[in-house]
Order: sequence, then C-alpha cells, then structure tokens
Amino acid sequence: MREVFQQELAEVQERLVEIAGLVAVAIENATKAFNESNVSLAEVVIDEDAKIDEAAIALDELAINILARQQPVARDLRIVVSALRISASLERMGDMAEHIAQLARYRFPDKVVPKSLRPTFLELGRLDVQIANKLTDLLRTEDVTLAEEIRNDDDQIDALHLSVFDKVLSETWKGAAVDTVDSTLASRYHERFADHAVSIAKKVQYLGTGEWVASAVIE
Amino acid sequence: MREVFQQELAEVQERLVEIAGLVAVAIENATKAFNESNVSLAEVVIDEDAKIDEAAIALDELAINILARQQPVARDLRIVVSALRISASLERMGDMAEHIAQLARYRFPDKVVPKSLRPTFLELGRLDVQIANKLTDLLRTEDVTLAEEIRNDDDQIDALHLSVFDKVLSETWKGAAVDTVDSTLASRYHERFADHAVSIAKKVQYLGTGEWVASAVIE
Repeated sequence: MREVFQQELAEVQERLVEIAGLVAVAIENATKAFNESNVSLAEVVIDEDAKIDEAAIALDELAINILARQQPVARDLRIVVSALRISASLERMGDMAEHIAQLARYRFPDKVVPKSLRPTFLELGRLDVQIANKLTDLLRTEDVTLAEEIRNDDDQIDALHLSVFDKVLSETWKGAAVDTVDSTLASRYHERFADHAVSIAKKVQYLGTGEWVASAVIE
Repeated sequence: MREVFQQELAEVQERLVEIAGLVAVAIENATKAFNESNVSLAEVVIDEDAKIDEAAIALDELAINILARQQPVARDLRIVVSALRISASLERMGDMAEHIAQLARYRFPDKVVPKSLRPTFLELGRLDVQIANKLTDLLRTEDVTLAEEIRNDDDQIDALHLSVFDKVLSETWKGAAVDTVDSTLASRYHERFADHAVSIAKKVQYLGTGEWVASAVIE
C-alpha cells in the first residue's frame, strides 16, 4: 500500500512538473508575442491555455482520488493538498500568460507598449520566463535554493512593476490613454504571474516545516 | 463517527459563512471609502484584512485536520476539498477589497476616479456588495437560485468593466494618466472580486453533480 502511495505521489509530482513546463512555454511565447507584436504566436498561447486547464483538472481528479483511496495523514496528506493548491496557481499563471497574449492580439498590428517602456517589458518578460523555468526545476528537483532565487527574481519584478507606474505617472509621459491602460494591465499581469510562482515556491519550501498552511493562504 | 463528521462539516460551513460575512463588510467599506474618499474607512479595511487571512488559515487547518481524522470519501471528501478552495477564493476577495481601499488611501484627499466615471464605480461597488451578501446567504442556505443571481450580477459587472475601458479610450476622455491608471486598476479589482464569487457559487452549485472539479479549476 505504502509503495503504491509513493508511486502515486511521484505521478502527482511528475504531472505538476509537466504543467509547469506548459506554463513556461506559454509565458515564453506570450512575452515574445507581446514584445514583438506577433499575433500568430499570441493565438498559439490563447489556444494552448485550454491544455493547461485540462491538465490541472486531471491532476485535481488524481489528487482527490488519492485522498479517497489512500487516506494519507500528516505530511503525506499535506503534500496531496498542496498539490491541489499548486495546480490552481499554475492554472492562474497560464491565465496571466494568456492575458498578456490577448493584449498583443488586441493591439495588433500596433505594439502594445510605447517605445519608452519597451526595455522594461522586455526585462519583465525575461524575468517571468526565468521564474517559470526555475519553478519547473524546483518542482522536479525540490532544490529549495531555487525557491530563494524565485523570490529574488520576484523582488526585481516588483521594482520594475513600480517603475512602470512611475513612468506612466511622470510629467514626461506622452502616451495616449490606450498606452496607459495597456501598460498598467500588462505590468500587473507580469507581476501576478511571478506572485503565483512565489506562492508555489513557498509551499514547496515549507512542506517539511509545518508552516505550510499559513504560507499557502496568505501568499 | 458519522455524527461527529456531520458536526465538523457544519462547523466548516459556519466558518465559511463567517469569512464571507467579513468579506461582505470589507467590500462595503472599501467601496464606500473609494467612492467618498474616506481615508479612515480605507484604513479600517486595510487593517481588517489580516482577520480574513487568519480566519482562512484557521479554516484550512480545520479542513486538513478533518481529512486526516475522518478520512472522508466520495461527496464528503469533495465537500471538504471544496471548502479549502472556497476559503482561498474568499481570501482573494478580501485582497481585492483591500486593493480598492488602498487606491482610496493613495489618492486621498483627491477622489480616485474622475467625475465622469463616478456613477459607473458607484454601480460596480453596489453590485460587488450585493454579490458578497448573496454569497454569504448562498453559503449559509445552499439555496442555489442565489448562485444564478450571482452569475447575472457578474454579467452586469463585466459590462460595466468594459464600459470603463470604452470611456477611458474614447476621444472625449480628458483624464490625466493617473486617472487612467486608477480607473483601469479599480475596475479590474471590482471585476475580479465578482469573478471569485462566481467561482465559489459554481462550486456550491455543482457540489452535488460530480462536475465539481472542472468548475473549480477553470473558474
């Protein structure tokens, strides 16, 4: 019974890694589509989001099935419950990538953000992709140094997110209202993407410490 | 054993109703603070958000404890797992109320939104408060007609949310960039608040149908 349970936990982990991999591809394509006004790539991201949703649903079914059949307790129980939470966060990360792609599609053939903010969004995109790749590795290897790195990357994203507001609200800002709206929303989507990654990273990091629930709810 | 379990489920439900009640107070105060530039009321909302977070954490601990001791299966298991998801959504609704209050505080003593959008935000606020109250009733009574009503209210919110963009992007928009940023973010927070309520309502509605997981992930 114990061995079967361990195999099932391994299956859960494998599927989380797979979904994180899909999310990493989504954010890579979304930020590329966004920064290069590539509408066909944006459409790929939008179409593929359904796959992330389906994979998250299938994983939830598996986790609930494991709860019902194996009736885990203590740390094992927390691992299965945390898998449910992690899949929900990954699904939201996929949504953020989709929202970024949708902005690219709405404004095509125009660029989404004005020239003065493009370096900032290139950097936001680069960091989100980096975070998604580190998150996939973290879920696969459980190497918690990656969790720390993700938090540091997120600090950079928060600073860039604030700098977008500084720019948009500065006296030198010449953007039209549409630029202001798009920059505001796009910056928020990039920031939320990273927030979800931090929340997952904390769950993985705290799984062994018993502090897990607090981190799961507050982040 | 069965009786104890039923009592514990009743306790879970009671706590969800309590948290939903806190969220309803939060959004009522937040939208009032937002529309009337009431900074002290905004600060109440910001301070009280910690109570919602703590209540959600305590509920999660209880739910995990029930899973460990009672080892429910089938529908009972889904009820407990759904309680975990519902508490996460309620916690996010509290965050949205807090974000709306923060906008009011940042801009004080100025109003957050320009005159032309105030009726729209009054209506968005009214609908969010109405949804929060219906949600509390839905969780208490399990009267699924309320779930339908919440969806209809949310359709109105979506239409108002789009109308904010229409106004901000129209040629007659005279707002400064700060008005554009605030209106965009505030509208998104109001809309996300309602989205979370719809997601909870669907979980309550589908709990008996077996379609529960799909609705839990996608919404």
